[in-house]
Amino acid sequence: MLKIDPDRLLNDLRHLRTFGATGPGVVRLSLSSVDMDARRWLAGRMNDAGLTAAIDGVGTVFGRSRNAGPALLIGSHTDTQPTGGWLDGALGVIYGLEIARALAECEETRSFAVDVASWFDEEGTFSGFLGSRSFVGDDVDEAIRGARNREGLSLADALAQAGLAGKPRVRLDATRHKAYMEPHIEQGGRLEAHGKSIGVVTTIVGIRELRLRFTGQRNHAGTTPMSIRRDAGAALVAFIARMDDAFRPLADADTVWTVGRIELDPGSFSVVPGAADLYLQFRDASAQRLRAMETALASLIRDFNDEGKVGVAMVDSEPPEEPVVMDAGLQAHLAQAAEAFAPGQWERMPSGASHDAQLLAHHMPACMLFVPSIGGVSHDFIEDTAEAHIVKGCEVAARAAAEILRTLNA
Amino acid sequence: MLKIDPDRLLNDLRHLRTFGATGPGVVRLSLSSVDMDARRWLAGRMNDAGLTAAIDGVGTVFGRSRNAGPALLIGSHTDTQPTGGWLDGALGVIYGLEIARALAECEETRSFAVDVASWFDEEGTFSGFLGSRSFVGDDVDEAIRGARNREGLSLADALAQAGLAGKPRVRLDATRHKAYMEPHIEQGGRLEAHGKSIGVVTTIVGIRELRLRFTGQRNHAGTTPMSIRRDAGAALVAFIARMDDAFRPLADADTVWTVGRIELDPGSFSVVPGAADLYLQFRDASAQRLRAMETALASLIRDFNDEGKVGVAMVDSEPPEEPVVMDAGLQAHLAQAAEAFAPGQWERMPSGASHDAQLLAHHMPACMLFVPSIGGVSHDFIEDTAEAHIVKGCEVAARAAAEILRTLNA
Repeated sequence: MLKIDPDRLLNDLRHLRTFGATGPGVVRLSLSSVDMDARRWLAGRMNDAGLTAAIDGVGTVFGRSRNAGPALLIGSHTDTQPTGGWLDGALGVIYGLEIARALAECEETRSFAVDVASWFDEEGTFSGFLGSRSFVGDDVDEAIRGARNREGLSLADALAQAGLAGKPRVRLDATRHKAYMEPHIEQGGRLEAHGKSIGVVTTIVGIRELRLRFTGQRNHAGTTPMSIRRDAGAALVAFIARMDDAFRPLADADTVWTVGRIELDPGSFSVVPGAADLYLQFRDASAQRLRAMETALASLIRDFNDEGKVGVAMVDSEPPEEPVVMDAGLQAHLAQAAEAFAPGQWERMPSGASHDAQLLAHHMPACMLFVPSIGGVSHDFIEDTAEAHIVKGCEVAARAAAEILRTLNA
Repeated sequence: MLKIDPDRLLNDLRHLRTFGATGPGVVRLSLSSVDMDARRWLAGRMNDAGLTAAIDGVGTVFGRSRNAGPALLIGSHTDTQPTGGWLDGALGVIYGLEIARALAECEETRSFAVDVASWFDEEGTFSGFLGSRSFVGDDVDEAIRGARNREGLSLADALAQAGLAGKPRVRLDATRHKAYMEPHIEQGGRLEAHGKSIGVVTTIVGIRELRLRFTGQRNHAGTTPMSIRRDAGAALVAFIARMDDAFRPLADADTVWTVGRIELDPGSFSVVPGAADLYLQFRDASAQRLRAMETALASLIRDFNDEGKVGVAMVDSEPPEEPVVMDAGLQAHLAQAAEAFAPGQWERMPSGASHDAQLLAHHMPACMLFVPSIGGVSHDFIEDTAEAHIVKGCEVAARAAAEILRTLNA
C-alpha cells in the first residue's frame, strides 16, 4: 500500500528552510553560498533515497531513478526571491523526493521510475527558468555569458566560482521522460477563499508586458495655464481609466491587468510632466482573450493619438508568453487522486503565475497541483501553508504519480 | 530727458550670459566659481555706475546709491537653475543697473536714489530666497548651517570657501527703502498668446504642496484576482480623476494644479502596488480659493477612506505660501509707463511663479513687471525674449522708477 511519510516530508522541508532562513522567510538566491549548500544537501538526500543525483553544469539538481523508464519527472525549484518564502518551489522538489521514496517502499510501485529535479534559477536571479530551458534543449550559452545578478556578477563567473563550469548538463531523454508533474503552492488566495485544499491546474496563463510612453510638453507648473498644458502625466491617468473601461467587458473572473509602475518626467512638484511612462502587464488563460486585449489597447492608442495633445506609443515590450494548457489525461489522474484524499475539497483552476512546467509542457505531457497559500501571500517572508495541506497535497501527488506510472507502464 | 541705453543694457546682459554659458543656456549655480565670477563682475559694473557695491556675507550683490533716500530698490537674482536660461533673474538685475545709470545721466532724476540687488540663491541651490530673506531680517543662520547643495556641500562651507563667511550682511533700511520693483521674464506664454509686450503683476500666487500616500495590499500580479485586489496605484489614479472633478468648478482661468510625480511601490510589472505616492501642487492668486481647494481635498480624502479598500493620508506638506498682492500705487505707475511706451500692448496678470518680491512685499510696497517669454519657456537652455521686448521692458521700468521716485520725493 503506497504511503508517504508525513514526518519525513515535513522534516526535509524544514531542513531545506534552514539554508538561508531569515526570520520566518528564506533568502536563497541562485548560486549564493547558502543556495549551493542547499543543492549539495538536496543531492545527498536524493542519493539517500536511491536516486543517482548530481548538480549539473547549469546548477540544476537532478536525481535519476535507477529503474528503467518510462519515467515520471517531478520537479520545481529551490532558489528563492530576494525576500522569499520557505515553500515557493521547495514544496514541489521535496514532494518529488518523498514520492520517489514512497514508491520505492511500496511493493506494487517499486519498479516505477520517478526522476526528481530542482531546476536552476526559476526566480531569475540571473536568468529566469534557466535550468528547465537548458533541460528541454534551449540554447542557454548566450544567457550564461550575458546574464548578471544585481551585484553585476555574470552567470558564467558565478557558475565557475561554484565549481560547476564545464560539468555536464542534464538533458531531457525523450525515450525515458514521458510525463512531468510540478506540485506548487498556489501563491494566490483562491483555494483558501473557496475552502478547498487542492487545486488541479488547467492552464498556465499567458502574459503580455509592455511600456507605454506619453509625450507632452514640459512646463512651469506655476505659469502654464491648465488650458494650454500638454501634461503627459494627466494624459497617462486618463488613458488608464479608458483602458480599464476597454478591458473590463473583455475580461472573465480570472483575467488580470496591472499598472505596476508609473514614471513622470522630470518628477518634480513644480514642473508639468513632459513625458510619462506606464508599465502594464496583463495575463489570461485564453490566447484569444489576450489577443483581444492587445487589439483593444492598439485601438485606444490610435484614438488617443488622433485626439491628441499628448502622444502615446508602445516603446518596449517583452516577447509574448502564450498560455500553456496542462495535459488532460494527467489532470484526470490528479483529479481522481484529489477526490480520493480530499473529496469535494478540490477544484480546477488556472495558474496565474509562471512555472517551469510551462517549459516542460512543450516537450511532454505536464500537470500541476496546487496547495493553498495562507492569505494568498507569496514572494514574502510570511508565505506559509497549513501543515495538513502540505501533507494532503503530497498524498494526492503520490497517488496520482503512481496512477500515471501505472498507465505509462501498461 | 530720461533715456536708457539699449546697447549698454543688451551688452551687459550678454556679458553676464558668458558666466556659465552652456549652448544657448546658462549653468550658474549659487556659489559655483562662475557664479562668484559673475557676482564680482556685477559689483564692478555697479561701482562703474556710481553705486557703492559689495558682495555681502550671504552672497547678495548690493549696490547702494550715493544719493540720500527715499530709495527705490530694484532687484532680482543672477543665479540659475541647473539647466537655466540667460534671462531668468539676470534681466531684472541688469534693468536695475541700467535704470540707476539712466537716472544718474538725466538732469531731472540724478538726485534720486536707486539701490540695486542681486539676491542670493533665489533658485534654491542651497536654500531658496536666502538673500532676500536675510535682507528683510529673517533668521537665516540655521538655513546656512543646514542647507546643502546636490553635492552635499553645506552653505556654511560654501560661503567660507567663497571668502564670504563673516562679511557683513546687507539689511533693509526702513528709513531709506520705500519701494521695491522686480522686473522679470514672464516664464509663461500668456503675454505672447495675447500679443502683449508688458505684464503688470497684480499678485504673486499662493502655493500648496503636499504628498498623499495610498495604502493597499501588495500582491502577486498573476495570482490575485481583480475583485479582491487592494491596488494602491489604481486607487491613486481614481483619486486624481475625482480631484480634477472637485477642483474644476472651484477654479478660474489662472488656477493651476499639478501632479508632478507618482511613485508606485514596489514598482515592478509583476506586483500589485501596495503603496502609492501622489505629489500635488496647486497655486492661485486668491487665498480664499486656495482654502476652498484644501477643503475639497480634505473632503475627498475623508470620502475615499470611508469607502475604503485603499486608505489615503496626507503624509507630507510644505508650509503654505499665501498669495502676495502687489502695491496698487506702484502698479499704477507701471501701468502708466506701459501705456506710454506700449499703448494697448500691456495687461495686468498674476505671477504664477515665486519671486524675491514676495518676501520684500511684506516690508515695503512692491511691484513686478513682466516681459514676454518666447514660447512661454523658462528653466530651460532655450529660454529667450525678443530684443525689442527686452528694451521696451527696461524703458517702461525706467519711466515707472522715475515716477515712483518723484512721488516718494514729493
